[in-house]
Amino acid sequence: MFEIDLLLNEPFELESGEVLTEIKLRTAIYGKLNADRSNAVLVFHALTGSARVHEWWDGVLKEGGALDPEKDAIVCVNYLGSCYGSTSAKDLKRRSSRREIPIVTTRDIVRSTSLLMEYLGIGRFKAVVGGSVGGMLALQFAVDLPQGADEVIAIAAAPLSAMGLALNHIQRQAVARGDIDIARKIALLSYRSPRQFDDRFGRKPNRNGEDPAKSFQHRFDVGGYLDHQGAAFRKRFELESYELLTKAMDLFDLTDEDILKIRARVSLVGISSDWLFPPADIRALAVRLADLGVDARYHELASEAGHDAFLSEPGTMSSILRHILSPDRLEYAEAAPAEHPRDERRFAASCS
Amino acid sequence: MFEIDLLLNEPFELESGEVLTEIKLRTAIYGKLNADRSNAVLVFHALTGSARVHEWWDGVLKEGGALDPEKDAIVCVNYLGSCYGSTSAKDLKRRSSRREIPIVTTRDIVRSTSLLMEYLGIGRFKAVVGGSVGGMLALQFAVDLPQGADEVIAIAAAPLSAMGLALNHIQRQAVARGDIDIARKIALLSYRSPRQFDDRFGRKPNRNGEDPAKSFQHRFDVGGYLDHQGAAFRKRFELESYELLTKAMDLFDLTDEDILKIRARVSLVGISSDWLFPPADIRALAVRLADLGVDARYHELASEAGHDAFLSEPGTMSSILRHILSPDRLEYAEAAPAEHPRDERRFAASCS
Repeated sequence: MFEIDLLLNEPFELESGEVLTEIKLRTAIYGKLNADRSNAVLVFHALTGSARVHEWWDGVLKEGGALDPEKDAIVCVNYLGSCYGSTSAKDLKRRSSRREIPIVTTRDIVRSTSLLMEYLGIGRFKAVVGGSVGGMLALQFAVDLPQGADEVIAIAAAPLSAMGLALNHIQRQAVARGDIDIARKIALLSYRSPRQFDDRFGRKPNRNGEDPAKSFQHRFDVGGYLDHQGAAFRKRFELESYELLTKAMDLFDLTDEDILKIRARVSLVGISSDWLFPPADIRALAVRLADLGVDARYHELASEAGHDAFLSEPGTMSSILRHILSPDRLEYAEAAPAEHPRDERRFAASCS
Repeated sequence: MFEIDLLLNEPFELESGEVLTEIKLRTAIYGKLNADRSNAVLVFHALTGSARVHEWWDGVLKEGGALDPEKDAIVCVNYLGSCYGSTSAKDLKRRSSRREIPIVTTRDIVRSTSLLMEYLGIGRFKAVVGGSVGGMLALQFAVDLPQGADEVIAIAAAPLSAMGLALNHIQRQAVARGDIDIARKIALLSYRSPRQFDDRFGRKPNRNGEDPAKSFQHRFDVGGYLDHQGAAFRKRFELESYELLTKAMDLFDLTDEDILKIRARVSLVGISSDWLFPPADIRALAVRLADLGVDARYHELASEAGHDAFLSEPGTMSSILRHILSPDRLEYAEAAPAEHPRDERRFAASCS
């Protein structure tokens, strides 16, 4: 893997009309581009992720994995406005004449990312893949750069529902009061599932020996876990980036006109226990895409881990990605011998 | 209706061992006790409710309603530690030698409530009913006062799951930072359902003409709704009471030993779209009670309104309560003629 900082020294105009005078994009590249540059895969990271895919998707990105740097060139760009090497929301606020964070949209992020295609001489990605806000960006890519990818894979992503908008609204209010740890804890509830919490924590007291019946300071185990996560997050993420990126999530939407522009094959992946992006909503979006003429299909990751299962269950995630990315998958399905119904059922379970 | 303040001028010892020197309990009474005092019904209010049942359950408490003050004497006590007339958490903190809010449990609240039975000369309630934390208290009543009621009805209540504990934990942290409005907004997400939010708000911009794409201050409609609710709540509820009562919720649990003490008939009511107390959990609790010898049954309120449906859908709620409280219900079920399968299906839908 190597990292590059791509600097754009000409004005970059945002969808809002605001003009940024200079932007930097931190990019990680795994593997090598082949001679005709036909083996590039673009990965969009999640809300608080970085370009370093190996740090958050190492079970998927590996030799022999669904994303294999031995075969493909895997590229990931830290988002404009994030705080992992690219021009951050804090930088943008500092430079702004009104000392305000600008509104950056998924369109802006896709357009900034496409600068990299120019730089690397990539006309078309073999695949573009992302989960959560990364899935929104993969879909935005399909809309805005119709010739830019053969296959677009959006995992656990759709325009936010009212509940999703509500969660982001409350989180941004907490952040505006300096409480990014509280925002993170609220977010974690939506990334996990009630079942997973019951299995991991149940009603057990905090593992360091606290007794919730004794005082308001003594916590249940799930409280200790959330506090640990909140404190760690406070150290690693910036308030301004959280505001900017959740706003971009909020504004992501898909009109019929948008969908009619799509030319790539689109695979949507729902997660069975996801309540932030319920699988029924993802499935409905796939049907809507197909109705509007997109070569769209729906897959479901069966897991009790909630929204974050695409990160926390790399094995299952990989097998779905491998199936989607396999050049033989159609042939495989057609060739599936009726004598081996078991194989079919295995596929039916993870990919429908 | 009339209200009384019941003052206890002798020491009241909490489960924690802490002794309160004086407590006051604001009580509302609707209708009249009959000669043999056999027509009393005890209602436990929800987390932020008051003794004034008509202010939050007027569709259920009314002439000819499921709770009918023309026939029964309906009694409700504001909880010890709440802020609607009873000794509040703020009072308790002020009086405490360490200037701390004491831990008050559901056992303490049930015991304080039972003082009222003594005062009114009620040996046994015809029914004890409550929703949410009120349902927890109804169950605690069944455990602690086995001879105190014929029928106990707990709606949308069970010991909190890890997700429920997590929600309360984050809310108390927000409250400790003075942000009771944020706590309320988080709570509201758990009281409503994603489907209801989508139907009511969808992705519409805030109704006062804001445009979320324009600035961070401009909200979606669901954000405007939550802010309105948060601001109203800040005016009507006290931080200390919120801390005390959510802690009581956290600590409520039912051991097998507890359940073995129950003598009342118990009806548990789940709400189909409730994700704070999922209907499957309520049903499982009913099975557990029955397995331990309790005359327990499970009913389900079919609604898209989420946890709060027991308040927001008084019509459906009343029909279930009327069914549970009807002295003829067993006869009805047995007499249901096989020639009228439709009637049976109607019951299967709302009460199973």
